[in-house]
Amino acid sequence: MTDRMLVWALAGIPEVAAGADLPRVILDAIGTAGDQLVDGDILVVTSKIVSKAEGRSVRAEDREDAITAETVRVVATRARADGGVTRIVQNRLGIVGAAAGVDASNTEPGTILLLPLDPDASARAIASKIRAETGVDVGIIVSDTLGRPWRDGQTDVAIGAAGVHIFDQLHGELDSAGRPLIVTQPCVADELAAAGDLVKGKISGCPVAVVRGMGRLVGDLDLPGASSIVRSSEKDMFRLGADEAHRIGFDEGFKAARAATAAE
Amino acid sequence: MTDRMLVWALAGIPEVAAGADLPRVILDAIGTAGDQLVDGDILVVTSKIVSKAEGRSVRAEDREDAITAETVRVVATRARADGGVTRIVQNRLGIVGAAAGVDASNTEPGTILLLPLDPDASARAIASKIRAETGVDVGIIVSDTLGRPWRDGQTDVAIGAAGVHIFDQLHGELDSAGRPLIVTQPCVADELAAAGDLVKGKISGCPVAVVRGMGRLVGDLDLPGASSIVRSSEKDMFRLGADEAHRIGFDEGFKAARAATAAE
Repeated sequence: MTDRMLVWALAGIPEVAAGADLPRVILDAIGTAGDQLVDGDILVVTSKIVSKAEGRSVRAEDREDAITAETVRVVATRARADGGVTRIVQNRLGIVGAAAGVDASNTEPGTILLLPLDPDASARAIASKIRAETGVDVGIIVSDTLGRPWRDGQTDVAIGAAGVHIFDQLHGELDSAGRPLIVTQPCVADELAAAGDLVKGKISGCPVAVVRGMGRLVGDLDLPGASSIVRSSEKDMFRLGADEAHRIGFDEGFKAARAATAAE
Repeated sequence: MTDRMLVWALAGIPEVAAGADLPRVILDAIGTAGDQLVDGDILVVTSKIVSKAEGRSVRAEDREDAITAETVRVVATRARADGGVTRIVQNRLGIVGAAAGVDASNTEPGTILLLPLDPDASARAIASKIRAETGVDVGIIVSDTLGRPWRDGQTDVAIGAAGVHIFDQLHGELDSAGRPLIVTQPCVADELAAAGDLVKGKISGCPVAVVRGMGRLVGDLDLPGASSIVRSSEKDMFRLGADEAHRIGFDEGFKAARAATAAE
Protein backbone atom coordinates (compact mmCIF):
# COMPACT_ATOMS: atom_id res chain seq x y z
CA MET A 1 0.00 0.00 0.00
CA THR A 2 1.44 3.34 -0.97
CA ASP A 3 0.88 6.70 0.71
CA ARG A 4 -2.44 8.31 -0.08
CA MET A 5 -2.31 12.05 0.35
CA LEU A 6 -5.51 14.02 0.80
CA VAL A 7 -5.24 17.80 0.54
CA TRP A 8 -8.00 20.32 1.03
CA ALA A 9 -8.42 23.98 1.84
CA LEU A 10 -10.00 24.95 5.13
CA ALA A 11 -13.17 26.90 4.56
CA GLY A 12 -14.32 29.49 7.06
CA ILE A 13 -11.09 31.26 8.00
CA PRO A 14 -12.22 34.85 8.65
CA GLU A 15 -10.22 37.96 7.79
CA VAL A 16 -7.23 37.86 10.16
CA ALA A 17 -6.48 40.98 12.20
CA ALA A 18 -3.29 42.00 14.00
CA GLY A 19 -3.05 40.12 17.27
CA ALA A 20 -5.31 37.28 16.13
CA ASP A 21 -4.69 33.90 17.75
CA LEU A 22 -3.99 31.90 14.59
CA PRO A 23 -3.96 28.41 16.18
CA ARG A 24 -7.40 29.22 17.65
CA VAL A 25 -8.67 30.54 14.30
CA ILE A 26 -7.48 27.38 12.53
CA LEU A 27 -8.90 25.00 15.14
CA ASP A 28 -12.23 26.83 15.06
CA ALA A 29 -12.39 26.51 11.27
CA ILE A 30 -11.67 22.79 11.49
CA GLY A 31 -14.32 22.35 14.16
CA THR A 32 -16.90 24.33 12.19
CA ALA A 33 -16.24 22.05 9.21
CA GLY A 34 -17.08 19.10 11.45
CA ASP A 35 -13.58 17.75 11.07
CA GLN A 36 -10.73 17.10 13.46
CA LEU A 37 -6.98 16.88 13.09
CA VAL A 38 -5.24 13.51 13.28
CA ASP A 39 -1.61 12.58 13.95
CA GLY A 40 0.54 13.28 10.92
CA ASP A 41 -1.62 16.06 9.47
CA ILE A 42 0.35 18.94 8.02
CA LEU A 43 -1.16 22.43 7.85
CA VAL A 44 0.08 24.67 5.05
CA VAL A 45 -0.52 28.23 6.23
CA THR A 46 -0.18 31.12 3.78
CA SER A 47 2.43 33.54 5.14
CA LYS A 48 0.05 36.41 4.47
CA ILE A 49 -2.21 35.52 7.41
CA VAL A 50 0.79 34.94 9.66
CA SER A 51 2.00 38.44 8.75
CA LYS A 52 -1.45 39.89 9.39
CA ALA A 53 -1.72 38.21 12.80
CA GLU A 54 1.75 39.47 13.67
CA GLY A 55 0.89 43.03 12.68
CA ARG A 56 3.41 43.21 9.81
CA SER A 57 1.29 45.68 7.84
CA VAL A 58 2.78 49.01 6.70
CA ARG A 59 1.46 51.91 4.63
CA ALA A 60 1.41 51.28 0.89
CA GLU A 61 3.17 54.59 0.14
CA ASP A 62 6.16 53.28 2.05
CA ARG A 63 6.49 50.27 -0.27
CA GLU A 64 9.87 51.08 -1.83
CA ASP A 65 11.34 51.97 1.57
CA ALA A 66 9.92 48.77 3.04
CA ILE A 67 11.53 46.68 0.30
CA THR A 68 14.83 48.43 0.93
CA ALA A 69 14.56 47.82 4.67
CA GLU A 70 13.83 44.13 4.16
CA THR A 71 16.69 43.72 1.68
CA VAL A 72 20.08 42.36 2.69
CA ARG A 73 21.56 42.20 -0.80
CA VAL A 74 20.40 43.12 -4.29
CA VAL A 75 20.77 40.13 -6.59
CA ALA A 76 19.44 41.57 -9.84
CA THR A 77 17.36 44.48 -11.08
CA ARG A 78 15.48 45.04 -14.28
CA ALA A 79 13.47 47.98 -15.61
CA ARG A 80 9.83 47.11 -16.16
CA ALA A 81 7.59 48.21 -19.02
CA ASP A 82 5.53 50.27 -16.54
CA GLY A 83 8.55 52.43 -15.66
CA GLY A 84 9.25 50.73 -12.34
CA VAL A 85 12.15 48.50 -11.46
CA THR A 86 11.88 44.85 -10.50
CA ARG A 87 14.28 44.13 -7.69
CA ILE A 88 15.32 40.53 -7.08
CA VAL A 89 16.85 40.63 -3.63
CA GLN A 90 17.97 38.44 -0.81
CA ASN A 91 15.88 39.38 2.19
CA ARG A 92 16.49 39.21 5.92
CA LEU A 93 15.51 35.55 5.89
CA GLY A 94 18.04 34.68 3.19
CA ILE A 95 15.24 34.08 0.69
CA VAL A 96 15.86 35.35 -2.84
CA GLY A 97 12.79 36.73 -4.54
CA ALA A 98 11.09 39.74 -6.05
CA ALA A 99 10.41 42.73 -3.81
CA ALA A 100 11.75 41.01 -0.66
CA GLY A 101 8.40 39.31 -0.21
CA VAL A 102 6.61 42.62 0.31
CA ASP A 103 3.05 41.88 -0.71
CA ALA A 104 0.37 44.22 -2.00
CA SER A 105 -2.34 41.74 -2.98
CA ASN A 106 -5.19 40.69 -0.72
CA THR A 107 -4.19 43.33 1.80
CA GLU A 108 -6.25 46.13 3.31
CA PRO A 109 -6.48 49.03 0.82
CA GLY A 110 -3.65 51.47 1.45
CA THR A 111 -1.51 48.88 3.18
CA ILE A 112 1.08 46.29 2.23
CA LEU A 113 2.42 43.34 4.17
CA LEU A 114 5.94 42.39 5.14
CA LEU A 115 6.88 38.75 5.64
CA PRO A 116 6.74 37.41 9.20
CA LEU A 117 9.80 38.38 11.23
CA ASP A 118 10.79 34.74 11.76
CA PRO A 119 8.52 32.31 9.90
CA ASP A 120 10.16 29.24 11.47
CA ALA A 121 9.39 30.65 14.92
CA SER A 122 5.85 31.47 13.77
CA ALA A 123 5.41 27.88 12.55
CA ARG A 124 6.80 26.51 15.80
CA ALA A 125 4.42 28.64 17.86
CA ILE A 126 1.43 27.49 15.82
CA ALA A 127 2.46 23.82 15.88
CA SER A 128 3.23 23.92 19.57
CA LYS A 129 -0.12 25.43 20.53
CA ILE A 130 -2.14 23.13 18.27
CA ARG A 131 -0.25 20.07 19.58
CA ALA A 132 -0.86 21.18 23.17
CA GLU A 133 -4.56 21.90 22.63
CA THR A 134 -5.40 18.79 20.63
CA GLY A 135 -2.81 16.24 21.71
CA VAL A 136 -2.28 15.55 18.02
CA ASP A 137 1.14 15.65 16.33
CA VAL A 138 0.73 18.05 13.44
CA GLY A 139 3.33 19.73 11.27
CA ILE A 140 3.17 23.34 10.09
CA ILE A 141 4.43 24.83 6.84
CA VAL A 142 4.31 28.60 6.32
CA SER A 143 4.13 29.13 2.56
CA ASP A 144 4.89 31.97 0.20
CA THR A 145 4.67 32.39 -3.56
CA LEU A 146 8.01 32.74 -5.38
CA GLY A 147 9.10 33.14 -8.96
CA ARG A 148 12.20 31.33 -10.14
CA PRO A 149 14.90 31.63 -12.79
CA TRP A 150 14.49 29.90 -16.15
CA ARG A 151 10.85 28.97 -15.70
CA ASP A 152 7.85 31.24 -16.05
CA GLY A 153 5.20 31.50 -13.37
CA GLN A 154 5.44 31.00 -9.65
CA THR A 155 5.09 28.13 -7.23
CA ASP A 156 4.44 28.12 -3.51
CA VAL A 157 7.40 27.20 -1.32
CA ALA A 158 8.06 26.79 2.40
CA ILE A 159 9.47 29.86 4.15
CA GLY A 160 8.71 28.53 7.62
CA ALA A 161 8.25 25.05 9.04
CA ALA A 162 7.93 23.22 12.32
CA GLY A 163 7.53 19.55 13.12
CA VAL A 164 8.04 18.58 9.47
CA HIS A 165 11.07 17.11 7.74
CA ILE A 166 12.32 19.66 5.23
CA PHE A 167 14.17 17.16 3.04
CA ASP A 168 13.26 13.56 2.37
CA GLN A 169 15.76 11.36 4.12
CA LEU A 170 17.38 9.50 1.22
CA HIS A 171 20.97 9.81 2.42
CA GLY A 172 22.67 6.47 2.56
CA GLU A 173 19.77 4.81 0.80
CA LEU A 174 20.22 2.93 -2.44
CA ASP A 175 18.29 3.14 -5.66
CA SER A 176 16.53 0.05 -6.99
CA ALA A 177 19.77 -1.05 -8.70
CA GLY A 178 21.73 -0.76 -5.43
CA ARG A 179 23.62 2.45 -6.21
CA PRO A 180 23.72 5.18 -3.53
CA LEU A 181 21.28 8.05 -4.02
CA ILE A 182 23.81 10.64 -2.96
CA VAL A 183 22.77 13.59 -5.02
CA THR A 184 19.04 13.54 -4.55
CA GLN A 185 17.61 15.44 -1.61
CA PRO A 186 13.96 16.14 -2.37
CA CYS A 187 12.76 19.31 -0.69
CA VAL A 188 9.47 17.90 0.54
CA ALA A 189 8.68 21.08 2.48
CA ASP A 190 8.52 23.02 -0.79
CA GLU A 191 6.52 20.21 -2.40
CA LEU A 192 4.02 20.31 0.48
CA ALA A 193 3.64 24.07 0.01
CA ALA A 194 3.04 23.49 -3.71
CA ALA A 195 0.42 20.82 -3.02
CA GLY A 196 -1.33 23.19 -0.63
CA ASP A 197 -1.42 25.95 -3.23
CA LEU A 198 -3.27 23.71 -5.70
CA VAL A 199 -6.30 23.60 -3.40
CA LYS A 200 -5.98 27.02 -1.78
CA GLY A 201 -5.75 28.97 -5.00
CA LYS A 202 -5.13 32.70 -4.88
CA ILE A 203 -8.68 33.98 -4.98
CA SER A 204 -10.59 31.58 -2.82
CA GLY A 205 -9.94 33.29 0.48
CA CYS A 206 -8.79 29.94 1.88
CA PRO A 207 -5.34 30.59 3.33
CA VAL A 208 -4.87 27.23 5.06
CA ALA A 209 -4.65 23.76 3.50
CA VAL A 210 -4.67 20.47 5.37
CA VAL A 211 -2.42 17.69 4.05
CA ARG A 212 -3.38 14.28 5.41
CA GLY A 213 -1.54 11.02 4.85
CA MET A 214 2.06 12.25 4.88
CA GLY A 215 2.68 11.48 8.54
CA ARG A 216 6.04 9.93 7.63
CA LEU A 217 7.26 13.52 7.15
CA VAL A 218 6.07 14.75 10.56
CA GLY A 219 8.46 14.75 13.51
CA ASP A 220 9.62 16.67 16.54
CA LEU A 221 9.25 20.41 16.88
CA ASP A 222 13.03 20.80 17.09
CA LEU A 223 13.59 19.56 13.53
CA PRO A 224 15.40 22.13 11.35
CA GLY A 225 13.06 24.75 9.94
CA ALA A 226 12.68 26.15 6.44
CA SER A 227 15.70 28.38 6.94
CA SER A 228 17.73 25.21 6.27
CA ILE A 229 16.54 25.36 2.64
CA VAL A 230 18.36 28.63 2.02
CA ARG A 231 21.67 28.07 0.23
CA SER A 232 24.47 30.40 1.33
CA SER A 233 25.16 32.92 -1.40
CA GLU A 234 28.88 32.05 -1.50
CA LYS A 235 27.92 28.53 -2.56
CA ASP A 236 25.41 29.69 -5.14
CA MET A 237 26.32 29.75 -8.81
CA PHE A 238 23.55 32.32 -9.33
CA ARG A 239 24.31 34.64 -6.44
CA LEU A 240 24.17 37.60 -8.84
CA GLY A 241 22.19 38.32 -11.99
CA ALA A 242 24.12 37.85 -15.24
CA ASP A 243 24.06 41.59 -16.07
CA GLU A 244 25.19 42.55 -12.56
CA ALA A 245 28.08 40.05 -12.55
CA HIS A 246 29.06 41.11 -16.06
CA ARG A 247 29.15 44.78 -15.04
CA ILE A 248 31.38 44.08 -12.03
CA GLY A 249 33.65 41.93 -14.18
CA PHE A 250 33.87 44.64 -16.84
CA ASP A 251 34.90 47.26 -14.30
CA GLU A 252 37.50 44.96 -12.77
CA GLY A 253 38.87 44.00 -16.21
CA PHE A 254 39.03 47.64 -17.24
CA LYS A 255 40.93 48.62 -14.08
CA ALA A 256 43.27 45.62 -14.40
CA ALA A 257 44.21 46.62 -17.93
CA ARG A 258 44.79 50.24 -16.85
CA ALA A 259 46.99 49.09 -13.96
CA ALA A 260 48.95 46.78 -16.27
CA THR A 261 49.44 49.61 -18.75
CA ALA A 262 50.64 51.97 -16.02
CA ALA A 263 53.16 49.37 -14.86
CA GLU A 264 54.59 48.80 -18.36
CA MET B 1 -17.03 23.30 -0.70
CA THR B 2 -13.39 23.59 -1.67
CA ASP B 3 -11.37 21.28 -3.92
CA ARG B 4 -10.28 18.07 -2.26
CA MET B 5 -7.23 16.62 -3.94
CA LEU B 6 -6.38 12.96 -3.47
CA VAL B 7 -2.95 11.84 -4.64
CA TRP B 8 -1.57 8.33 -4.61
CA ALA B 9 1.15 6.30 -6.30
CA LEU B 10 0.13 3.50 -8.61
CA ALA B 11 1.45 0.20 -7.32
CA GLY B 12 2.29 -2.62 -9.70
CA ILE B 13 4.02 -0.81 -12.56
CA PRO B 14 6.58 -3.37 -13.76
CA GLU B 15 10.07 -2.54 -15.02
CA VAL B 16 9.50 -0.70 -18.30
CA ALA B 17 11.41 -1.92 -21.37
CA ALA B 18 12.11 -0.15 -24.65
CA GLY B 19 9.04 -0.31 -26.83
CA ALA B 20 6.64 -0.78 -23.92
CA ASP B 21 3.10 0.49 -24.40
CA LEU B 22 2.96 2.91 -21.46
CA PRO B 23 -0.76 3.74 -21.63
CA ARG B 24 -1.46 -0.02 -21.53
CA VAL B 25 0.98 -0.52 -18.62
CA ILE B 26 -0.69 2.30 -16.66
CA LEU B 27 -4.24 1.11 -17.36
CA ASP B 28 -3.30 -2.44 -16.36
CA ALA B 29 -1.85 -1.19 -13.06
CA ILE B 30 -5.02 0.78 -12.36
CA GLY B 31 -7.17 -2.24 -13.19
CA THR B 32 -5.08 -4.57 -11.03
CA ALA B 33 -5.53 -2.13 -8.13
CA GLY B 34 -9.29 -2.48 -8.60
CA ASP B 35 -9.57 1.19 -9.47
CA GLN B 36 -10.66 3.11 -12.52
CA LEU B 37 -9.91 6.54 -13.87
CA VAL B 38 -12.55 9.27 -13.71
CA ASP B 39 -12.91 12.53 -15.62
CA GLY B 40 -10.46 15.11 -14.35
CA ASP B 41 -7.84 12.67 -13.10
CA ILE B 42 -4.28 13.75 -13.76
CA LEU B 43 -1.51 11.18 -14.07
CA VAL B 44 1.98 12.33 -13.08
CA VAL B 45 4.39 10.07 -14.95
CA THR B 46 8.09 10.08 -14.05
CA SER B 47 10.08 10.94 -17.18
CA LYS B 48 12.38 8.01 -16.50
CA ILE B 49 9.79 5.43 -17.57
CA VAL B 50 8.86 7.50 -20.62
CA SER B 51 12.55 7.52 -21.58
CA LYS B 52 12.80 3.78 -21.00
CA ALA B 53 9.71 3.05 -23.12
CA GLU B 54 11.11 5.29 -25.86
CA GLY B 55 14.47 3.51 -25.82
CA ARG B 56 16.46 6.57 -24.69
CA SER B 57 19.08 4.45 -22.90
CA VAL B 58 22.77 4.86 -23.76
CA ARG B 59 25.97 3.29 -22.41
CA ALA B 60 27.15 4.73 -19.09
CA GLU B 61 30.72 5.23 -20.39
CA ASP B 62 29.30 7.69 -22.90
CA ARG B 63 27.84 9.88 -20.15
CA GLU B 64 29.95 13.01 -20.70
CA ASP B 65 29.45 12.81 -24.47
CA ALA B 66 25.73 12.32 -23.94
CA ILE B 67 25.51 15.41 -21.75
CA THR B 68 27.40 17.40 -24.38
CA ALA B 69 25.08 16.14 -27.12
CA GLU B 70 21.98 17.09 -25.13
CA THR B 71 23.36 20.54 -24.28
CA VAL B 72 22.41 23.63 -26.22
CA ARG B 73 24.20 26.12 -23.97
CA VAL B 74 26.37 25.92 -20.87
CA VAL B 75 24.92 28.15 -18.16
CA ALA B 76 27.42 27.53 -15.35
CA THR B 77 30.07 25.02 -14.34
CA ARG B 78 31.66 24.24 -11.03
CA ALA B 79 34.40 21.82 -9.97
CA ARG B 80 33.14 19.20 -7.55
CA ALA B 81 34.95 17.78 -4.53
CA ASP B 82 35.15 14.40 -6.31
CA GLY B 83 37.25 15.91 -9.12
CA GLY B 84 34.40 16.04 -11.62
CA VAL B 85 32.65 19.11 -12.95
CA THR B 86 29.00 19.95 -12.41
CA ARG B 87 27.57 21.39 -15.58
CA ILE B 88 24.39 23.44 -15.37
CA VAL B 89 23.19 23.59 -18.95
CA GLN B 90 20.22 24.46 -21.07
CA ASN B 91 19.23 21.31 -22.88
CA ARG B 92 17.47 20.66 -26.18
CA LEU B 93 14.13 21.23 -24.48
CA GLY B 94 15.15 24.64 -23.13
CA ILE B 95 15.21 23.28 -19.59
CA VAL B 96 18.07 24.50 -17.40
CA GLY B 97 19.42 21.88 -15.02
CA ALA B 98 22.37 19.76 -14.01
CA ALA B 99 23.79 17.29 -16.54
CA ALA B 100 21.10 18.06 -19.16
CA GLY B 101 18.74 15.67 -17.44
CA VAL B 102 21.01 12.70 -18.14
CA ASP B 103 20.11 10.22 -15.43
CA ALA B 104 22.19 7.46 -13.92
CA SER B 105 19.95 6.39 -11.02
CA ASN B 106 17.41 3.59 -11.22
CA THR B 107 18.72 2.59 -14.64
CA GLU B 108 20.02 -0.75 -15.87
CA PRO B 109 23.62 -1.21 -14.68
CA GLY B 110 26.03 0.12 -17.30
CA THR B 111 23.42 2.36 -18.86
CA ILE B 112 22.14 5.89 -18.40
CA LEU B 113 18.97 7.52 -19.63
CA LEU B 114 18.42 10.61 -21.74
CA LEU B 115 15.24 12.66 -21.37
CA PRO B 116 12.41 11.86 -23.78
CA LEU B 117 12.94 13.46 -27.19
CA ASP B 118 9.75 15.53 -26.89
CA PRO B 119 8.05 15.11 -23.50
CA ASP B 120 5.01 17.17 -24.52
CA ALA B 121 4.48 14.83 -27.48
CA SER B 122 4.99 11.84 -25.17
CA ALA B 123 2.38 13.24 -22.77
CA ARG B 124 -0.03 13.87 -25.65
CA ALA B 125 0.38 10.34 -26.95
CA ILE B 126 -0.29 8.86 -23.50
CA ALA B 127 -3.27 11.14 -22.82
CA SER B 128 -4.73 10.54 -26.25
CA LYS B 129 -4.56 6.76 -25.99
CA ILE B 130 -5.91 6.64 -22.43
CA ARG B 131 -8.76 9.00 -23.38
CA ALA B 132 -9.59 6.86 -26.41
CA GLU B 133 -9.49 3.58 -24.51
CA THR B 134 -11.41 4.70 -21.44
CA GLY B 135 -13.59 7.54 -22.67
CA VAL B 136 -12.37 9.49 -19.65
CA ASP B 137 -10.79 12.96 -19.88
CA VAL B 138 -7.47 12.63 -18.10
CA GLY B 139 -4.49 14.96 -18.07
CA ILE B 140 -0.87 13.84 -18.21
CA ILE B 141 2.18 15.43 -16.61
CA VAL B 142 5.65 14.06 -17.39
CA SER B 143 7.81 14.95 -14.38
CA ASP B 144 11.51 15.29 -13.74
CA THR B 145 13.57 16.20 -10.67
CA LEU B 146 15.38 19.54 -10.83
CA GLY B 147 17.62 21.53 -8.54
CA ARG B 148 17.23 25.27 -8.37
CA PRO B 149 19.24 28.37 -7.52
CA TRP B 150 19.20 29.79 -4.01
CA ARG B 151 17.46 26.85 -2.39
CA ASP B 152 18.98 23.50 -1.47
CA GLY B 153 17.42 20.24 -2.54
CA GLN B 154 15.32 19.41 -5.55
CA THR B 155 11.66 19.40 -6.45
CA ASP B 156 9.81 17.61 -9.19
CA VAL B 157 8.60 19.80 -12.05
CA ALA B 158 6.67 19.29 -15.27
CA ILE B 159 8.80 18.76 -18.38
CA GLY B 160 5.90 17.46 -20.45
CA ALA B 161 2.14 17.93 -20.25
CA ALA B 162 -1.03 17.25 -22.21
CA GLY B 163 -4.64 18.03 -21.46
CA VAL B 164 -3.69 20.05 -18.37
CA HIS B 165 -3.54 23.80 -17.86
CA ILE B 166 0.07 24.75 -17.21
CA PHE B 167 -0.71 28.01 -15.44
CA ASP B 168 -3.70 28.82 -13.28
CA GLN B 169 -5.91 31.23 -15.13
CA LEU B 170 -5.84 34.28 -12.88
CA HIS B 171 -5.43 36.87 -15.63
CA GLY B 172 -8.00 39.57 -15.38
CA GLU B 173 -9.21 38.29 -12.05
CA LEU B 174 -9.24 40.46 -8.98
CA ASP B 175 -7.95 39.82 -5.51
CA SER B 176 -10.37 39.93 -2.58
CA ALA B 177 -9.89 43.71 -2.32
CA GLY B 178 -10.75 44.16 -6.00
CA ARG B 179 -7.25 44.86 -7.31
CA PRO B 180 -6.10 43.02 -10.45
CA LEU B 181 -3.86 39.99 -9.86
CA ILE B 182 -1.62 40.85 -12.76
CA VAL B 183 1.66 39.49 -11.59
CA THR B 184 0.68 36.13 -10.25
CA GLN B 185 0.66 33.19 -12.64
CA PRO B 186 0.86 30.02 -10.56
CA CYS B 187 2.59 27.23 -12.44
CA VAL B 188 0.13 24.51 -11.47
CA ALA B 189 1.82 21.96 -13.76
CA ASP B 190 4.97 22.18 -11.62
CA GLU B 191 2.88 22.06 -8.45
CA LEU B 192 1.13 18.90 -9.69
CA ALA B 193 4.52 17.30 -10.38
CA ALA B 194 5.60 18.24 -6.84
CA ALA B 195 2.44 16.77 -5.32
CA GLY B 196 3.04 13.56 -7.27
CA ASP B 197 6.61 13.30 -6.00
CA LEU B 198 5.43 13.35 -2.38
CA VAL B 199 3.66 10.02 -2.84
CA LYS B 200 5.94 8.45 -5.45
CA GLY B 201 9.15 8.95 -3.52
CA LYS B 202 12.42 8.06 -5.17
CA ILE B 203 12.87 4.53 -3.89
CA SER B 204 9.42 3.07 -3.99
CA GLY B 205 9.49 1.90 -7.58
CA CYS B 206 6.19 3.71 -8.12
CA PRO B 207 6.79 5.95 -11.12
CA VAL B 208 3.18 7.07 -11.66
CA ALA B 209 0.95 9.10 -9.34
CA VAL B 210 -2.76 9.72 -9.76
CA VAL B 211 -4.08 13.16 -8.81
CA ARG B 212 -7.86 13.18 -8.34
CA GLY B 213 -10.05 16.18 -7.66
CA MET B 214 -8.26 18.81 -9.74
CA GLY B 215 -10.50 18.44 -12.79
CA ARG B 216 -10.72 22.23 -13.07
CA LEU B 217 -7.15 22.08 -14.42
CA VAL B 218 -7.91 19.44 -17.09
CA GLY B 219 -8.77 20.53 -20.63
CA ASP B 220 -8.27 19.80 -24.31
CA LEU B 221 -5.27 17.94 -25.64
CA ASP B 222 -4.27 20.99 -27.69
CA LEU B 223 -3.59 23.13 -24.60
CA PRO B 224 0.01 24.44 -24.48
CA GLY B 225 2.46 21.88 -23.12
CA ALA B 226 5.18 22.18 -20.51
CA SER B 227 7.50 23.77 -23.07
CA SER B 228 5.48 26.94 -22.41
CA ILE B 229 7.04 27.07 -18.92
CA VAL B 230 10.53 27.61 -20.34
CA ARG B 231 11.55 31.26 -20.20
CA SER B 232 13.62 32.43 -23.15
CA SER B 233 17.22 32.95 -22.06
CA GLU B 234 17.27 36.53 -23.41
CA LYS B 235 14.52 37.39 -20.93
CA ASP B 236 16.20 35.64 -18.05
CA MET B 237 18.13 37.62 -15.45
CA PHE B 238 20.04 34.42 -14.60
CA ARG B 239 20.85 33.23 -18.11
CA LEU B 240 24.51 32.77 -17.03
CA GLY B 241 26.17 31.83 -13.77
CA ALA B 242 27.64 34.75 -11.81
CA ASP B 243 31.24 33.53 -12.34
CA GLU B 244 30.68 32.99 -16.07
CA ALA B 245 29.12 36.43 -16.58
CA HIS B 246 31.87 38.03 -14.49
CA ARG B 247 34.59 36.36 -16.59
CA ILE B 248 33.06 37.55 -19.86
CA GLY B 249 32.69 41.05 -18.41
CA PHE B 250 36.29 41.05 -17.21
CA ASP B 251 37.60 40.10 -20.66
CA GLU B 252 35.47 42.73 -22.34
CA GLY B 253 36.53 45.40 -19.84
CA PHE B 254 40.18 44.46 -20.24
CA LYS B 255 39.96 44.71 -24.04
CA ALA B 256 38.02 47.97 -23.84
CA ALA B 257 40.74 49.55 -21.69
CA ARG B 258 43.47 48.29 -24.05
CA ALA B 259 41.63 49.68 -27.03
CA ALA B 260 41.12 53.02 -25.25
CA THR B 261 44.84 53.15 -24.35
CA ALA B 262 45.86 52.35 -27.92
CA ALA B 263 43.65 55.18 -29.20
CA GLU B 264 45.13 57.74 -26.78
